[in-house]
Amino acid sequence: MTLNTTMSDETLFTRPAGLVEHRLHAMLDESKLPPDLLEASRHGVLGGGKRLRPALVVLSCESVEGETEHALPAAAALELVHCFSLVHDDLPALDNDELRRGQPTLHIRSGEAMAILAGDLMLTLAFKHLVESGYDDKTSQRLVSELASGTTGMVIGQVFDTLGGMPDDLSPEDQLRLVHRNKTGALLRAACRMGAICGNATATQLEALTTYGDAVGLMFQVVDDLLDVTQTAEHIGKATGKDELHGKLTYPGLLGVEGSRKAVEALHTQAMDALQPLGEAAGPLRDLGQYMAVRTK
Amino acid sequence: MTLNTTMSDETLFTRPAGLVEHRLHAMLDESKLPPDLLEASRHGVLGGGKRLRPALVVLSCESVEGETEHALPAAAALELVHCFSLVHDDLPALDNDELRRGQPTLHIRSGEAMAILAGDLMLTLAFKHLVESGYDDKTSQRLVSELASGTTGMVIGQVFDTLGGMPDDLSPEDQLRLVHRNKTGALLRAACRMGAICGNATATQLEALTTYGDAVGLMFQVVDDLLDVTQTAEHIGKATGKDELHGKLTYPGLLGVEGSRKAVEALHTQAMDALQPLGEAAGPLRDLGQYMAVRTK
Repeated sequence: MTLNTTMSDETLFTRPAGLVEHRLHAMLDESKLPPDLLEASRHGVLGGGKRLRPALVVLSCESVEGETEHALPAAAALELVHCFSLVHDDLPALDNDELRRGQPTLHIRSGEAMAILAGDLMLTLAFKHLVESGYDDKTSQRLVSELASGTTGMVIGQVFDTLGGMPDDLSPEDQLRLVHRNKTGALLRAACRMGAICGNATATQLEALTTYGDAVGLMFQVVDDLLDVTQTAEHIGKATGKDELHGKLTYPGLLGVEGSRKAVEALHTQAMDALQPLGEAAGPLRDLGQYMAVRTK
Repeated sequence: MTLNTTMSDETLFTRPAGLVEHRLHAMLDESKLPPDLLEASRHGVLGGGKRLRPALVVLSCESVEGETEHALPAAAALELVHCFSLVHDDLPALDNDELRRGQPTLHIRSGEAMAILAGDLMLTLAFKHLVESGYDDKTSQRLVSELASGTTGMVIGQVFDTLGGMPDDLSPEDQLRLVHRNKTGALLRAACRMGAICGNATATQLEALTTYGDAVGLMFQVVDDLLDVTQTAEHIGKATGKDELHGKLTYPGLLGVEGSRKAVEALHTQAMDALQPLGEAAGPLRDLGQYMAVRTK
């Protein structure tokens, strides 16, 4: 795989991220939260990051020729859920991380109580934003359902990953796939489906974007596992080598680095094949899938 | 005030609680959660309690002659939010409670990580249940908005109560009212409004039930403060005397026990007056307001 020359950060990230950041800023400004909670929420929500999930929502919507504007509330809601999950996952009782995107995590900065409560708030605001942003009632209802399914999957994945309890009758590779499909995949799948719904996708288009979302969702986590063993903490802005330290089941641990790279290639091919029915309009989504396969942080 | 002789536990609690318990059981059974998470969620959700909030949803719906059946998904969703909030509020970083309804709290039983994650899940399932229970799209959208507003208020109230940060320019009584109207009041208000929406209430009926909800919402917490100073832990099934121990602003602390009882009477009168436009159909809600004023646990 080589980087596609048509790909630009501007198309893939900068534009959708800018639009969604703007929306998240405005939403928090208008939220009438008390100052401390507002400040904590801003730290949790506006602390940077590539905004991959909002980009998937926006580009999925555009890939079915939906209007960008229609995707933004859904993209902001999905990012709120992602940010809430980072705040809670970083807590001492879970991953116990002190560093996130090169900054102190929220519980380090504002205390555990605030991190728990601000996370709860961010999750709630996500659903509130979906139903109070001018979508028609049917679209609202579908988006809430998708976001809730994605979030449920994510929590299930985190339980498996942190606390175990996976079905005994699965092979290690199936167990790993089960964790990853839930922990990361469910929300990335939801991103693609929500974008499709915002763009009034046909059933065929929704199916295509679901298959794409499933493939890039799993691929994202395989790449993440690879980065954990091949990159420095300085480069990616959070602790690395933690998976091995905690004896976690990972793709490189199971298939080796080469085997994992092959898995990435296979998933990348699946994702590209899925986009076939969408034609030219899915160009940026192809580029994004390509980026996700070769990213180094 | 004396107990109204028409009041029976069967009308007020046993029937709505039974219906909602049944729904919550079925919802969890069908949730396909992994066993450990399912067990933790069951402990958090099905651990008893009077089911006051579901009763408010059901009786509010019936007070505008709506069908009981229509209120049940909303009542179950609201109870999920209430239960999630108990699980998170009990955590060591927040209220650090080891006992709830005479049972070990979830983090004591299943560990902090599971309590955080199961709480997140319960909140998510609440919104999921609202939009996947057959309400028409408009009703779904309104219910999600109400539930999210109530939950937001509740989190704001918990931040004020646990971490402070209230506006300096308020009198102690106004500060206390601000905490209580949010921490407990917002969800009880939402219960009444959601019941009204499920029963297709007119604008006047919705307003009446909102005023009733606001009054009983604040009253509930004043009574709670009173019970904290006047009852034993054994009687109410959780630790008492904690407010004074933690130097919390409370109604008895501010107005004395007698002054607080007068405040309860005034709020009770407000609640009863609000129900006037609803006539006979609001009988059970009147009884419930009466019960909430004189309860001893």
